[in-house]
Amino acid sequence: MLRHFLLICFAAVSGVYAQSKTVAPKAQVLVVYHSESGQTHAMAEAVMRGANVVGGVAVLLRTTSTVSAAELQASDAIIIGSPVINANPSPEVLSFIRSWPFKEGAMKNKIGSAFATGGGISAGEELVQVSLLHAMLVFGMVVVGGDEWTSSFGASAVTGEKPFDESKSVNAIFIRKAERLGRRVAEAALRWKED
Amino acid sequence: MLRHFLLICFAAVSGVYAQSKTVAPKAQVLVVYHSESGQTHAMAEAVMRGANVVGGVAVLLRTTSTVSAAELQASDAIIIGSPVINANPSPEVLSFIRSWPFKEGAMKNKIGSAFATGGGISAGEELVQVSLLHAMLVFGMVVVGGDEWTSSFGASAVTGEKPFDESKSVNAIFIRKAERLGRRVAEAALRWKED
Amino acid sequence: MLRHFLLICFAAVSGVYAQSKTVAPKAQVLVVYHSESGQTHAMAEAVMRGANVVGGVAVLLRTTSTVSAAELQASDAIIIGSPVINANPSPEVLSFIRSWPFKEGAMKNKIGSAFATGGGISAGEELVQVSLLHAMLVFGMVVVGGDEWTSSFGASAVTGEKPFDESKSVNAIFIRKAERLGRRVAEAALRWKED
Amino acid sequence: MLRHFLLICFAAVSGVYAQSKTVAPKAQVLVVYHSESGQTHAMAEAVMRGANVVGGVAVLLRTTSTVSAAELQASDAIIIGSPVINANPSPEVLSFIRSWPFKEGAMKNKIGSAFATGGGISAGEELVQVSLLHAMLVFGMVVVGGDEWTSSFGASAVTGEKPFDESKSVNAIFIRKAERLGRRVAEAALRWKED
Repeated sequence: MLRHFLLICFAAVSGVYAQSKTVAPKAQVLVVYHSESGQTHAMAEAVMRGANVVGGVAVLLRTTSTVSAAELQASDAIIIGSPVINANPSPEVLSFIRSWPFKEGAMKNKIGSAFATGGGISAGEELVQVSLLHAMLVFGMVVVGGDEWTSSFGASAVTGEKPFDESKSVNAIFIRKAERLGRRVAEAALRWKED
Repeated sequence: MLRHFLLICFAAVSGVYAQSKTVAPKAQVLVVYHSESGQTHAMAEAVMRGANVVGGVAVLLRTTSTVSAAELQASDAIIIGSPVINANPSPEVLSFIRSWPFKEGAMKNKIGSAFATGGGISAGEELVQVSLLHAMLVFGMVVVGGDEWTSSFGASAVTGEKPFDESKSVNAIFIRKAERLGRRVAEAALRWKED
Repeated sequence: MLRHFLLICFAAVSGVYAQSKTVAPKAQVLVVYHSESGQTHAMAEAVMRGANVVGGVAVLLRTTSTVSAAELQASDAIIIGSPVINANPSPEVLSFIRSWPFKEGAMKNKIGSAFATGGGISAGEELVQVSLLHAMLVFGMVVVGGDEWTSSFGASAVTGEKPFDESKSVNAIFIRKAERLGRRVAEAALRWKED
Repeated sequence: MLRHFLLICFAAVSGVYAQSKTVAPKAQVLVVYHSESGQTHAMAEAVMRGANVVGGVAVLLRTTSTVSAAELQASDAIIIGSPVINANPSPEVLSFIRSWPFKEGAMKNKIGSAFATGGGISAGEELVQVSLLHAMLVFGMVVVGGDEWTSSFGASAVTGEKPFDESKSVNAIFIRKAERLGRRVAEAALRWKED
């Protein structure tokens, strides 16, 4: 709880510092997700918080049905979140990706990353993360996973696995990983951005 | 061409023989697919032909939007075909699978198999096949891939890879693999069916 | 603990009952694994216990270096266990699979299943399970995953994920899933075996 | 043939130009592979040629048994090539990756990419490419696939698929893709490298 609070404080202070220093953000990070039960939404907010910790980055939080084509195009990094539906990303998320432009390498060299929320350990969370990364590779995107504080393929949340976690809410351990993922991707977006 | 013709003859004769011998088919095979350009449709028809070669099996050919819940339930084996959409199954196919019943192991122990059609070599055909198999495993289905005459994970067709194949139609080599897959799955359905 | 004890009792009684009833087992299940830290070994023993619950089945427990080619050939079902090594099966397990015979469909139509042990949630356990299933499909094997009591792709154990599980031993929840997998595969082997 | 020749000329000229202009290369690309039949070796050489086209990059070509730990550490980008062995990377390649250092994020933020060589269409080439990318993500590497001239997940070669290609040598179409992959990864390494 304290750690969580401190992170938010850090994010707020960083944001203020960044705003005072820079006129315009150097990179834009889009966190876009589809959520049915609210769990992927909770993870998406955590990813956004983590990205906001990084100065010089503008962060957008959108659902797959509210994001605009212009916002997609203007983003340097895209982090997609999906619930696990039968070991695959949700049809809504894949329909969203199908709407992306192919022509003239519109998505090429954007940074891509993914997170997933599933209802049990080894219930498809890994497969959904990598399936989203594979889709991004098709568009020529550059893919970033997690680091030592998050999980290898991005971030995942497991809810409802008994007796570990019988609640339906997302455990703080997964929220923390999502925050770290947001931070990692934002840093990558800044580094990758050509000066 | 001749080989193709002979297979159809064999299928027809087998069918007549099977009908003359058995009052009711012992197993039902459902070939269900989503097609946009007609290529997955061509593969689906080939899978159906191959399954029909096997005596004692009833074969249904349906699209993901025309198949009924009753047909799904009554089938002992389900072979799903999808185009490759950004290295994933099409949203239509995944929406169809999302409609399957989970309760009381409704799909458990049905035989499952998959085929995919993509627009280039290594363009996601393998990933779509295995993603469909993974979804079937979630429902407790028993998964059958190809054999020495088809491909390991079911069957795939590659169209439009230059200079191998510049046409948009499905090359006979892939049609033949689809026929073999249908035959293999039908045989598995018969064997797996409890007496 | 009690549940665990009861399962063992059930297995023992079933075994005695099976032996008193049948002269020879109708199917042979091979549990073969590679273990470095002892965790995959613990899971393998649980899979074996679960398979032994099913009457009429002979169960072998071997490592990838102690199993003989004759034992492999004589088995109707093969359940492979591997630690997660960088999101892939261990090289030892893959070297073992490379030694399998391809000629004359030697492995074709055997039942196959897999389990994996990894050091964190979403750390590659799913990917290792499905990678092993994919390898089995190459040999024409028929693949069985888990059911409602185990996990979709076979069985997995996660050790060392804080704060869920800080010990290095395998939590009972995963042991129970492994037992269920063994039982499920043994039942599938009996059903699939041609009379 | 002519195109191939021109590419080599371009590479040679670019190399000379780069050497005349820069004292030291700005980034190092390591192409490391395991080959059994010589086909993955042929692809590796093509990847190297493609990377050499890019000025300011030093390119190393090594096998998994000849590369040194120092060379691995000094490289900004690593492109791994493997034959397809039962739908998985070869045990030799995975053993090599197991030898990588984990401590202090030694591999973190290096660029990673992969290519695979298999004996048939949809015979595991995609799965091997993505399995290698997944392993790289475990180490915190940033993953680059192909672009519009190569394949989505890196590069692949299919040999021996009849009637497309009955020879055992690698078709020029795949060689060209490998060259493009090398070029793409070298450009990414330069861009990602912090100034």
